Amino acid sequence: MDLSTLGRPLEGLRVIDLTRALAGPYATLLLAGLGAQVIKVEDPRGGDLARENSPYVGRDGIVVERKHDDDVSISHLTRGRGKHGVSLNLKAPEAAGIFADLVRSADIVVENFSAGTADRLGVGYEAAKAANPAIIYCSLSGFGADAPEGGKAMDVIIQALSGAMFASGDHDDPPVRIGVPIADMLAPVFSVIGILSALEQRHRTGVGQHIDVSMLGALTSFVAIENWSAMAAAGMGARTGLTVRRLSPFGVFECADGYVALVAVHEKMAQGLFRAMGAPELGEEPRFASRDARVANAHALEDRINAWSRTLPVAEVVRLLEAEGVPTAPVRHPEEALLDARVVAREETMPIAHPSYPSTVDLRTAGIPIRFSGATTGFDDVLPVSIGEHNADIYRDLLGYSDADIAALQAKGVM
Amino acid sequence: MDLSTLGRPLEGLRVIDLTRALAGPYATLLLAGLGAQVIKVEDPRGGDLARENSPYVGRDGIVVERKHDDDVSISHLTRGRGKHGVSLNLKAPEAAGIFADLVRSADIVVENFSAGTADRLGVGYEAAKAANPAIIYCSLSGFGADAPEGGKAMDVIIQALSGAMFASGDHDDPPVRIGVPIADMLAPVFSVIGILSALEQRHRTGVGQHIDVSMLGALTSFVAIENWSAMAAAGMGARTGLTVRRLSPFGVFECADGYVALVAVHEKMAQGLFRAMGAPELGEEPRFASRDARVANAHALEDRINAWSRTLPVAEVVRLLEAEGVPTAPVRHPEEALLDARVVAREETMPIAHPSYPSTVDLRTAGIPIRFSGATTGFDDVLPVSIGEHNADIYRDLLGYSDADIAALQAKGVM
Repeated sequence: MDLSTLGRPLEGLRVIDLTRALAGPYATLLLAGLGAQVIKVEDPRGGDLARENSPYVGRDGIVVERKHDDDVSISHLTRGRGKHGVSLNLKAPEAAGIFADLVRSADIVVENFSAGTADRLGVGYEAAKAANPAIIYCSLSGFGADAPEGGKAMDVIIQALSGAMFASGDHDDPPVRIGVPIADMLAPVFSVIGILSALEQRHRTGVGQHIDVSMLGALTSFVAIENWSAMAAAGMGARTGLTVRRLSPFGVFECADGYVALVAVHEKMAQGLFRAMGAPELGEEPRFASRDARVANAHALEDRINAWSRTLPVAEVVRLLEAEGVPTAPVRHPEEALLDARVVAREETMPIAHPSYPSTVDLRTAGIPIRFSGATTGFDDVLPVSIGEHNADIYRDLLGYSDADIAALQAKGVM
Repeated sequence: MDLSTLGRPLEGLRVIDLTRALAGPYATLLLAGLGAQVIKVEDPRGGDLARENSPYVGRDGIVVERKHDDDVSISHLTRGRGKHGVSLNLKAPEAAGIFADLVRSADIVVENFSAGTADRLGVGYEAAKAANPAIIYCSLSGFGADAPEGGKAMDVIIQALSGAMFASGDHDDPPVRIGVPIADMLAPVFSVIGILSALEQRHRTGVGQHIDVSMLGALTSFVAIENWSAMAAAGMGARTGLTVRRLSPFGVFECADGYVALVAVHEKMAQGLFRAMGAPELGEEPRFASRDARVANAHALEDRINAWSRTLPVAEVVRLLEAEGVPTAPVRHPEEALLDARVVAREETMPIAHPSYPSTVDLRTAGIPIRFSGATTGFDDVLPVSIGEHNADIYRDLLGYSDADIAALQAKGVM
């Protein structure tokens, strides 16, 4: 089947994108990759702050400090993919009418201002609904659209509040800051589910609605899949570090040149592990001869495994375990993981490049991790390098504004 | 507005749920909470292995080992919410016809067998499509539906391969096993996005398709949002532990009785931090007087902050920082986080209970972290406590099988 003729699942839908930073732009990035047309609205006086994130890429390659006007932040290259960009000063008196025109042309609006800000700017759900009752309007915020105003919701703040930091690490360890901005990333994924669910409902009802997703709520709901209070009531330790002793042997072990993950919970796997270790007799030893015994003697078992694995390179440990059918994997660095042949082939990670300057480094970033048999995913070859780059395409060709009107609005600083 | 009359966004859709363990059942749990009818299909000879996960809840409260027939695993209580349960032995010759009848009644099928297994069992996409060309069929697997067979994809294996473990922790630290089963949880969230996108496309085309989501791909795409190769090329450290020194002060600091997260990247926040510390003069000191200086002297600055915060309880540090407008939060344990009043009010975490025995412990688990202005979310009061509990509702009342046929099929072990 020629996938290129299939089209993308959300083709024909249009998104007005008021978002900044990471959480909001990742939501609209997913919508763009699924085929929606995304129109990113930026303030003509500076635009998305992610444009200022170091490092940059440009004519001098990858640089920590911006040197040339056309150096582009890799954050912006990543998150701006497949999006059209228009400029609009939301504080200008003309902005309300222009926003209404955009919303009338669209199916979806997404914003991630602090709670209450969009309403104050005149671009909240009520304003959008007045322009287009079928609009689906999604707000992403730190604590929900109903939260009192204020309170900056950075990823690290939400990680701290959600319990995710104390879910990782060992019993007496400090908390662990998760190195992937998981609070920033999860809320947008749930926002997209909310938007698509509301689209499905709109097919039945004809009307839109307001979707409201909280970063704290999204991440806390993930943490809550483990029943922490029941584990505590049952006397089961919650913070167990690199291994989970109630499933022993299970977790991460040290090798001569790195670390390996292995799981040998069930009898067959445990016997395979002991054979891989060149010590099949461990399977007869009373301390390790049954699942219950292995759990009861987990510390001794883990010491025994580490004493073996520390003498060998990761690749050799993985080879020996795989030969015995024991689930195992090397613990890989992100740079290596992003280049996994399976992940690259499925475009779950993808290359990005400055539109004008090819890079010698593979700038690899997030793709759309969903494969469709009857559709494609991916990004149109469009990116707002400069703020308002697509004003003519959108304001003139889509909304029908005249060149003279656009020029006048630009001269006034509205666009 | 009376939310109870609104209905849920996915009402009227039916899901045939072939999933087991966590990744698949979490996908169908989200669909159930959004209003779809989910029919969980289990082998009459044992059902979902998550039924055997300790701890259990029952007439004796929370117990580590199952004592009574009606003790229910908290994993099953959590993941089975709002789902109907039928029994079906997929290896029986009669199963193909019964599966086809189920698929003809449905919109969506979800499975998370190892790649290739569903086809071998005769319940893969081709079989489903033959019964119902409009069916949307979602496969969740470790490495994608096109991967060679075999290779168990447990959460810890995928975490290791994805780079997520080395994204956390400090430069010379061992990797960090993330305590939330993030590989198991992310793939289903993307599966739901795939399913809903395919539903949107089906409104245009009338036909269904196969959705294929890989646990490795979903988590690696999250890791890839940070451009690791560019950071390396720019000489920026990737593994930075509890703090991020290129944004200093940013991260987690120690208090007398716990830890606090704080962010004071920008000038105003930094000055607020110094006032909160009772040391406004730090803002004049050349080492800390500008953003660049603070980054250059990040170690000294972090030592100074820890020397202050270690003398005070978390609550006092948070109070002092909030009074100065510095973004901050206590690092909370999951048990406390799940009870956050905002999260509870928005049902982002929810109580669960054994259908027959109330628990003295608040068994709190994941809710649907999306609020709709024109719809509700939540779970029907239905759960397959025993395998095949809803055989009569589904096989007789929905599919029209006779009681005699059902009894005969049960006697033969097909159901």
